[in-house]
Amino acid sequence: MPIRAPAPLLYASTERSADMLYFGRFDVPDPFIAFAARGKKIAVLSALEFGRAKKSSGFDRVLPLEPWLAKAKAAFPRATPRAGAAEVIALLARAHGLSGFAVPEDFPAGLLDRLRRLGLRITVASGAFFPEREVKTSAEAAAIREGNRCSALGIAAARDVLRASRIRGNRLWHRGEVLTSERLKVAIETACLEAGAVSLNTIASGGDQACDPHERGHGPLRPHELIIVDVFPRVTATGYHGDMTRTFLRGRASEAQRALVAAVREAQLAALGKIRAGANGRDVHAACVAVFDARGYQTKRTPRGSVGFFHGTGHGLGLDIHEAPRMSGAVDYTLKAGSVVTVEPGLYYPGLGGCRIEDVVQVTTARPKMLSAAPYEWELR
Amino acid sequence: MPIRAPAPLLYASTERSADMLYFGRFDVPDPFIAFAARGKKIAVLSALEFGRAKKSSGFDRVLPLEPWLAKAKAAFPRATPRAGAAEVIALLARAHGLSGFAVPEDFPAGLLDRLRRLGLRITVASGAFFPEREVKTSAEAAAIREGNRCSALGIAAARDVLRASRIRGNRLWHRGEVLTSERLKVAIETACLEAGAVSLNTIASGGDQACDPHERGHGPLRPHELIIVDVFPRVTATGYHGDMTRTFLRGRASEAQRALVAAVREAQLAALGKIRAGANGRDVHAACVAVFDARGYQTKRTPRGSVGFFHGTGHGLGLDIHEAPRMSGAVDYTLKAGSVVTVEPGLYYPGLGGCRIEDVVQVTTARPKMLSAAPYEWELR
Repeated sequence: MPIRAPAPLLYASTERSADMLYFGRFDVPDPFIAFAARGKKIAVLSALEFGRAKKSSGFDRVLPLEPWLAKAKAAFPRATPRAGAAEVIALLARAHGLSGFAVPEDFPAGLLDRLRRLGLRITVASGAFFPEREVKTSAEAAAIREGNRCSALGIAAARDVLRASRIRGNRLWHRGEVLTSERLKVAIETACLEAGAVSLNTIASGGDQACDPHERGHGPLRPHELIIVDVFPRVTATGYHGDMTRTFLRGRASEAQRALVAAVREAQLAALGKIRAGANGRDVHAACVAVFDARGYQTKRTPRGSVGFFHGTGHGLGLDIHEAPRMSGAVDYTLKAGSVVTVEPGLYYPGLGGCRIEDVVQVTTARPKMLSAAPYEWELR
Repeated sequence: MPIRAPAPLLYASTERSADMLYFGRFDVPDPFIAFAARGKKIAVLSALEFGRAKKSSGFDRVLPLEPWLAKAKAAFPRATPRAGAAEVIALLARAHGLSGFAVPEDFPAGLLDRLRRLGLRITVASGAFFPEREVKTSAEAAAIREGNRCSALGIAAARDVLRASRIRGNRLWHRGEVLTSERLKVAIETACLEAGAVSLNTIASGGDQACDPHERGHGPLRPHELIIVDVFPRVTATGYHGDMTRTFLRGRASEAQRALVAAVREAQLAALGKIRAGANGRDVHAACVAVFDARGYQTKRTPRGSVGFFHGTGHGLGLDIHEAPRMSGAVDYTLKAGSVVTVEPGLYYPGLGGCRIEDVVQVTTARPKMLSAAPYEWELR
């Protein structure tokens, strides 16, 4: 008798679970039950979603939640708290002849415990739940390219605002107001919206602020300082992301700033030269480190935070902003043809500022295919 | 000896966990470890977040992830997959004299199993992890009011576009183009962005599309049809949401459309008349149902979906868009003073269209306090 893998079970909103969106290709803002049985994808949805799901989801069957909940309440009258998703899943398992399920690592702990108490065998997956997500189809690569088109429009909007701004003392002025990170982010995010994507957590951060790579930037931006602009929008129609970074400076750069930017771009090119199917992500990262080492840029941890190059060189990109694979010194991982990764070395030194340059490529057996395009011009005099 | 409740433990990004944002008041886009020990809130953050967290988080202590991870790898050399968050948590528990933790219902299942295999006693909370989130402080109520100010600006932008549009046959035209749901949503979302909030999943849905309450709307909007505009932005500075809905019609309404809108508004006023501390949410919902029953609006499930009033009257609003309490026919729940809830009855009949009107109030011991304000004018001739 063949060993049958347990049927996959998900319980999540598509806001919080890219696996759920991948599974059903249907946006639902609240958590819901979805599973597979005999090769069919089945979702259980409330009246709020039912009609829409019947019309436009990728599920083979859509079951209405309310009658299943009523059945669960009748079948488990003494459940405490009263019957809910777990009891509905137990009835569904029985109806489909399933004794257990496989669930993803981020499956909710409360539901896991309750399903096990109901006698179901639940296996929690270790690692990716749908490992096939790592290798992108050509349609997925096109969707990511579209995400990067939106990123590039956001970055171009930022560059245009910076270029049009006037320098007065240690402030930039734009349209009669002091230019702030917040205003630059509104310009970026509006450009993304108009292109059909939502850019959350956009980074437009200058000077020492940019030395915290996840600081989004706040307050006035200054002339003659490095400004990191990192835009990773989600295309509304598909759920796929873009992710691009450019570093700008409005005014005149110092020699130290120019050397920093040149080193980061050289590191990015070195990484791009190493990326191909079969390469180890650790070696791609090491190529960046070698460039920085050769130029004397040290990385170290200080009590106030780290300086130098202290993040990974890149990460997978798709329905999640951060997904498999990773390319960093700490991860031993072989790149696969079809994977889509960011390539984003950076250097950060308070006092001098931060620089990060990021593009997105698809791994092939030869040179990686660029899925992002934007100019590298950065000093806006 | 007093019974000590287990220490709370969280592992989540603040994108996915409002509890984490509530706990640390600090935005982190990737999952991280946070827990409490001896009354102190402690976070373990990577170099990417460490400096920023030291400067601006609500944590009492911020520990650097990298050295703890190195310690975990040394202490658990044979872990498979290799040592990670679970092993770091085990070391932290030992260092703080803790034998176990309480975790929220949505804690990741994979980490739960692994912590238990490491011998930690993990209790999964049943229901709210921080029940105090339900009752809003005056600062939280102000943050939600600000969210609704952003909602109202989005709704006003939609109204202005609809009013400025021209009717030609069965199309609306605006600035030389056919007006679509997509274009109306860009106008709404841009208005929210400029006000400091991000509006995701905005609904601008007309005619029969609006009869699926979570259909966001796509394609051309038509004159003389009901258009539901539901805007629930998140204020970037605080993480709190607004949530408002208005229903518009550009052109001339039929008597049946006018009766529908009048019934929904009457139901909303009936609900508002019932909301106070000590009232049961079920009775608030019943007040809406009574209005619809008296006017002959039937609710039923059909093979293609439900019609009538088939969702709850309202839900709690705060760091999550949907949180405690709920007010619906299926939920027996007593409202508390200080809770913030939406009040949003609706009616949906394909062929006639859908109408929903939504405001937000804070529950008091007397009449609820309005936290949203926008006109109810809807027929834009």
